[in-house]
Amino acid sequence: MKILGIDPGYATIGYGIIHKERQNIKPIDYGVVATPVTESIPVRLAILDSEITKIIQENKPDAIAIEELFFGTNTTTAIKVAQARGVILLASIKNCGLLYEYTPLQVKMALTGNGRADKKQVQYMVSAILGLKEVPKPDDAADALAVAICHANTTNFEKRILN
Amino acid sequence: MKILGIDPGYATIGYGIIHKERQNIKPIDYGVVATPVTESIPVRLAILDSEITKIIQENKPDAIAIEELFFGTNTTTAIKVAQARGVILLASIKNCGLLYEYTPLQVKMALTGNGRADKKQVQYMVSAILGLKEVPKPDDAADALAVAICHANTTNFEKRILN
Repeated sequence: MKILGIDPGYATIGYGIIHKERQNIKPIDYGVVATPVTESIPVRLAILDSEITKIIQENKPDAIAIEELFFGTNTTTAIKVAQARGVILLASIKNCGLLYEYTPLQVKMALTGNGRADKKQVQYMVSAILGLKEVPKPDDAADALAVAICHANTTNFEKRILN
Repeated sequence: MKILGIDPGYATIGYGIIHKERQNIKPIDYGVVATPVTESIPVRLAILDSEITKIIQENKPDAIAIEELFFGTNTTTAIKVAQARGVILLASIKNCGLLYEYTPLQVKMALTGNGRADKKQVQYMVSAILGLKEVPKPDDAADALAVAICHANTTNFEKRILN
């Protein structure tokens, strides 16, 4: 099973593709889509749409796992990230029928067994599970791989996006 | 000049198309796009994308004016509305180069001269300006027409979406 994990954002969007066969999980590709700060938000959304669509169509994942959003103190950023997440959900549903979402807590639990694990612990587990010598860079790519691994290690998929 | 106004949402999205020639503003069409509650959010976003795209392509507006979002107390709703707004911005930029956004305050000021005007006053002015015998229904359609009229009556378009 091929899984695409996505860490949503509007400036830098992480993606990570893994392959799971029985208990064996291997990395296929990972990286980030960056949208230029010099462009307007609608243009950046169009670039994001085009890049994410390309990644899905080239890799043909069996499932896509996307991190859920939580509101921080900066609501202006939250609106921008949520707008970008809408575009990511649209590109995903148009090109792959199976979408799932996981909270940051679920990702931490799935990778470390500890819902209060810090970023470094999660990243260490990403490299350990995938057999990588170093932690994947940048952080957004490692976060996206973590969401994909979380989905691979979730035996019941009841958290599939339904509402 | 033909202007499409949009009142963003994820369940009910208002749209209103007006034509401005000198100081004369006339309604062309208005209504709502409704996405079925029985479907998942990604599927509803895909329906919204398809319907908004159809409205833009059929009407070929010279400009699109979209209401800005503000956060209320319900952050779950805010995330859903912002995700839908991202899809609306994407469909807009793909099909019409000129996008503008206005705050609820700017819309109220432009239509009534009073930033604290209530919904009924704004709706009354929408019907008065457009020469309609009754207030356009539902509210989301009237709100969308109000945004379009706000853009028509804005002489400097500095509030064009740039970031």
